[in-house]
Amino acid sequence: MEVNLTIKPLRRFVLKISGHLINPDNIGLVIRYGEYLKKLREKGLASAVVVGGGVYARKYIVAARNIGASESLCDILGVYVTRVNALLLISAIGLDHAYPEPPRSVEEFLKASSTGKIVVTGGFEPGQSTATVAALVAEAFKANALLLATRVEGVYDKDPRVYGDAKLLKEITVAQLRRILSKTQSMKAGGYELLDPLALAIIERSKIPVIVFNGSKPELLENILLKKENPGTIIKP
Amino acid sequence: MEVNLTIKPLRRFVLKISGHLINPDNIGLVIRYGEYLKKLREKGLASAVVVGGGVYARKYIVAARNIGASESLCDILGVYVTRVNALLLISAIGLDHAYPEPPRSVEEFLKASSTGKIVVTGGFEPGQSTATVAALVAEAFKANALLLATRVEGVYDKDPRVYGDAKLLKEITVAQLRRILSKTQSMKAGGYELLDPLALAIIERSKIPVIVFNGSKPELLENILLKKENPGTIIKP
Amino acid sequence: MEVNLTIKPLRRFVLKISGHLINPDNIGLVIRYGEYLKKLREKGLASAVVVGGGVYARKYIVAARNIGASESLCDILGVYVTRVNALLLISAIGLDHAYPEPPRSVEEFLKASSTGKIVVTGGFEPGQSTATVAALVAEAFKANALLLATRVEGVYDKDPRVYGDAKLLKEITVAQLRRILSKTQSMKAGGYELLDPLALAIIERSKIPVIVFNGSKPELLENILLKKENPGTIIKP
Amino acid sequence: MEVNLTIKPLRRFVLKISGHLINPDNIGLVIRYGEYLKKLREKGLASAVVVGGGVYARKYIVAARNIGASESLCDILGVYVTRVNALLLISAIGLDHAYPEPPRSVEEFLKASSTGKIVVTGGFEPGQSTATVAALVAEAFKANALLLATRVEGVYDKDPRVYGDAKLLKEITVAQLRRILSKTQSMKAGGYELLDPLALAIIERSKIPVIVFNGSKPELLENILLKKENPGTIIKP
Amino acid sequence: MEVNLTIKPLRRFVLKISGHLINPDNIGLVIRYGEYLKKLREKGLASAVVVGGGVYARKYIVAARNIGASESLCDILGVYVTRVNALLLISAIGLDHAYPEPPRSVEEFLKASSTGKIVVTGGFEPGQSTATVAALVAEAFKANALLLATRVEGVYDKDPRVYGDAKLLKEITVAQLRRILSKTQSMKAGGYELLDPLALAIIERSKIPVIVFNGSKPELLENILLKKENPGTIIKP
Amino acid sequence: MEVNLTIKPLRRFVLKISGHLINPDNIGLVIRYGEYLKKLREKGLASAVVVGGGVYARKYIVAARNIGASESLCDILGVYVTRVNALLLISAIGLDHAYPEPPRSVEEFLKASSTGKIVVTGGFEPGQSTATVAALVAEAFKANALLLATRVEGVYDKDPRVYGDAKLLKEITVAQLRRILSKTQSMKAGGYELLDPLALAIIERSKIPVIVFNGSKPELLENILLKKENPGTIIKP
Repeated sequence: MEVNLTIKPLRRFVLKISGHLINPDNIGLVIRYGEYLKKLREKGLASAVVVGGGVYARKYIVAARNIGASESLCDILGVYVTRVNALLLISAIGLDHAYPEPPRSVEEFLKASSTGKIVVTGGFEPGQSTATVAALVAEAFKANALLLATRVEGVYDKDPRVYGDAKLLKEITVAQLRRILSKTQSMKAGGYELLDPLALAIIERSKIPVIVFNGSKPELLENILLKKENPGTIIKP
Repeated sequence: MEVNLTIKPLRRFVLKISGHLINPDNIGLVIRYGEYLKKLREKGLASAVVVGGGVYARKYIVAARNIGASESLCDILGVYVTRVNALLLISAIGLDHAYPEPPRSVEEFLKASSTGKIVVTGGFEPGQSTATVAALVAEAFKANALLLATRVEGVYDKDPRVYGDAKLLKEITVAQLRRILSKTQSMKAGGYELLDPLALAIIERSKIPVIVFNGSKPELLENILLKKENPGTIIKP
Repeated sequence: MEVNLTIKPLRRFVLKISGHLINPDNIGLVIRYGEYLKKLREKGLASAVVVGGGVYARKYIVAARNIGASESLCDILGVYVTRVNALLLISAIGLDHAYPEPPRSVEEFLKASSTGKIVVTGGFEPGQSTATVAALVAEAFKANALLLATRVEGVYDKDPRVYGDAKLLKEITVAQLRRILSKTQSMKAGGYELLDPLALAIIERSKIPVIVFNGSKPELLENILLKKENPGTIIKP
Repeated sequence: MEVNLTIKPLRRFVLKISGHLINPDNIGLVIRYGEYLKKLREKGLASAVVVGGGVYARKYIVAARNIGASESLCDILGVYVTRVNALLLISAIGLDHAYPEPPRSVEEFLKASSTGKIVVTGGFEPGQSTATVAALVAEAFKANALLLATRVEGVYDKDPRVYGDAKLLKEITVAQLRRILSKTQSMKAGGYELLDPLALAIIERSKIPVIVFNGSKPELLENILLKKENPGTIIKP
Repeated sequence: MEVNLTIKPLRRFVLKISGHLINPDNIGLVIRYGEYLKKLREKGLASAVVVGGGVYARKYIVAARNIGASESLCDILGVYVTRVNALLLISAIGLDHAYPEPPRSVEEFLKASSTGKIVVTGGFEPGQSTATVAALVAEAFKANALLLATRVEGVYDKDPRVYGDAKLLKEITVAQLRRILSKTQSMKAGGYELLDPLALAIIERSKIPVIVFNGSKPELLENILLKKENPGTIIKP
Repeated sequence: MEVNLTIKPLRRFVLKISGHLINPDNIGLVIRYGEYLKKLREKGLASAVVVGGGVYARKYIVAARNIGASESLCDILGVYVTRVNALLLISAIGLDHAYPEPPRSVEEFLKASSTGKIVVTGGFEPGQSTATVAALVAEAFKANALLLATRVEGVYDKDPRVYGDAKLLKEITVAQLRRILSKTQSMKAGGYELLDPLALAIIERSKIPVIVFNGSKPELLENILLKKENPGTIIKP
């Protein structure tokens, strides 16, 4: 099936990978992401990557909250862990291709990115999801698309963990997604994990197509970028 | 009238001032804010200040958008201008009391704040309102209250520019405010200028009382902090 | 007319543009500078740009002075505004060609410049004109020439705003210029705007040819660099 | 028993805590360290703290090594995790008493320390143990003593995990410790965990007394500093 | 003789010391400056210090020039050496009183200075004398006076190395000094070493009284500041 | 004689040069190193350079020690001087080929190195030899070899300054070198100057071949890298 996007060449993309996929308990997958990102760069595709916090971030955040830390410090702790995960992916890509340090803000991202290397970031600020970071990075990078490597296949019309007949949506608009997210409580959890309202607003204002796919299959990356395949869901801005 | 807040002493506060109030066309007001902030610090009150962009930020943002810059760069330009406004206020407070440079992130804010000086920030990141910055700073600073110096008297039940009988609300909860903002289109503009959804979420999660007041009257600051007066609206988290 | 300079190829140049030309009220010109600088880089010419403060810098400086700020802080405020103007030009050039942040010192300029991008700076330090910054950047960049885009056609033998018979000088030495500047009061204003004594001293010690031209005509840039045209004044070091 | 050190007042100390003690699985202990450090500061004792990596650092290092990263990157990953642990302790001490960010080098430590707050560091560089960092920090801080909070009671004459009759040494010189470490293979593991040769060399050259104690008992801190108790081992430089 | 200055209390001062006085070949003097600066701070006087490059800076600059480096890089090398001298003085003052790192710009100076410690700087930028740095620092620090510790007793009416009857001037205005410097070639050398035209301009615009004294006698510092003695020359702005 | 290393192409190397060779008293040699490093980069060889402190570092360290500074500050002073030497070499290589500033840590080195320029470092931390810095940089840079430009021809079986029949060793293993260093007191001085125990440990763990050669002959560099010549000693990891 031919994927039909408004934009033509996907030569610049941002990849957001869940912290549940990039961590020390998933070495095989980390290695594969490293290899594919390196290979795609050698083919001339420019990329930037945003890595989430996953289980370890949650552990530290819960601990800090129990300690009585401000929500702000809890979030910053989580951000620190996303940077550890980001460095793990950097070491898998290798320093010939990846910038050696996760930047701490969009301004730092742009400076790092001016070297032409793959810049891998974790989170930036407290009160900000890594999905929002990914949207901001995609906007700053003038990316043709934002790819979301998640633990699900894509966006469903109902919560697939509840409804056996939930159907994977091949395409959806940001407006549709927002409407479903605000109405259907059952979709909230899985949906929010993908994209919070601020991330959606940024995607919309900068018209960045988003492609959600099963992040345990990094081999899908190339075909998605070549528009040969749409294995998940395209969110049209 | 005695203001009734859940928290007792307002010894640490964050003040958010609209960029329409702090700029070179408003020198008198800038001087007065400088004096009051200095005086309050000498009385032992710890403060941090967030300054918006105002007319000049808007000029540069519009220019960049016409030039064809990414929304991200437009925002960063706006953030640069907020930092100029912040430095203008810093120079009014004086360097014996104010930290000499607006920080660029919550992490930088915390480092600057560890000197014990009044830290004045502008914006931090693209895609982020200065209201959200103020909420993040209030959370990180463990502020007893967030004071919003705006161009209006407080929050109204209807848009006061449209309805002659609009009534100033003395108290409102975050939940009530959010409900009104999502339903009443007419309140959106004025309301959004105060607090966007993300700012509200941060205020709620960290239970930071917000006091909206007429920012052209900095002399109100002390009485608000001493809880002798509630000239505007208290938003209860 | 063939321009006769001691240096041969103008492959590395520094362009200093008045802040009166690069600002939000001059979008058309900003766009054109962005395009020409990009085009020249694609043709293999290496450039760095220094942008002044213009009207907005003056506004903030006057405000700070009225507030009673030290001259040092007034200057730093002005420097902040030059950085906003610099970022405006950066967004016109685009981040594929321009470094994303104005550096704050010669040392930072050199680091930014090592990426091979066009580095756009504003001012660096209080007590330092952007003309001096341009001379320092030209020296550090080992530029073949420093081009001054000003609001006049070049250097005149008398003040053209006073004398109808003032003659545009095609060539002048630094020593001649310095002598005229110290004697003729009437030339001071316009002359100083170009180059203060420190800028002249740096130009002299590093033998950097300076070309003054009408900055409202960025289309002149290429011919000046190819030495096909000398539309203004050449200052010989 | 009265502790007999050459130095008189222990008013400035550095505390090094194993990463096996400061991490999200040990919240109770983290909270207690936070409280004691805050209390001691309020009593006028100046401190700096160095936190190790523990289990989580090891997880990330092993993962990176399996990925094929350079030993350098593996170490840097470990350093990143020590900084997360350091921030966890910072959040337990609270930002009124602790500097908000772990510094990255001795030079950064000194700058952070000039605020008068408790500075908590993780590791600094690859190829450097956190014990060496602790010795460097103690030297730079001009600490009266370096306290090592470990998972053992102190230094033994034999490996206590092997020999039932191993005896806890109340005092030992650096020279004696070094001799034992080089001869007795059985002591190496436990010994090295405390102090590697470089850490010993720094302790020796700057004559910093070291006190090893059971880190699961932070309540010992005060008595050790008041020299009322020597619950572990004193290493005399 | 009673010194008559327009300003009353000299509670904030900037001291500029020649690099010929602060270097490894002058340990005794470095120690004494360290002691006096510490003592004056304990008495409540706030100070900042600027240290020049001296013989070692000259050695490196000459070497770089012979190598064919740009004048810019030669100057930066010299600035690096001034920072080494600055750190030498910092180590003599001790880190309880001195900020641990020489800042690189006025903006960095202000941040360092907000800790309340004595900030010791070397040079800032190429093309800038340390006398200009001292004037900029005095302006930013709002100093009551700038003290110049030089290798001569003060300012003379003629070059004392040439004329046996040269007379030490107790007072002189900036305007007088500038006139003499531009006319009398014989005074230039010694005079310029004190204050170049840019330094004079900054002193004048911010009305900073300058006191020139024999830098080999740091014991004069206190009496000068208490206005009990005027051992050298006062330059009135 | 054909050099037989386990690694094939020496396309990435780290060169460590004694501070006794790179300083203002050795301009000729500094120029030649600049030329050779530039030439080798043009031939496609990637390099990083570490420069020691030499006589000037020693002067400042001795002065600081006499002043009573902590060993930590003495070391940092020495590190500052290594950075001056590093900048001297940078100016000899020229900024088209060299990164303009010596980084302060391995993390900073990696960022600088991502520009593709030759990065020249001095020391990093107190308590760390520049030999250790060189080993760390070689590890982080994934260098094929570490070249040590020393004041001797290579490693000898006995101290050549004592024994007339001392023999230059063409090859030695790290283990052998360590054994000799710990046993033979006579070799210590010269040996330690080359490689301290920590540097050896890093070389061993990352299997970096080390080639010691007479640093006064930079013309040897190319043949060593092409493995056409082994003029000194190869240390096999």
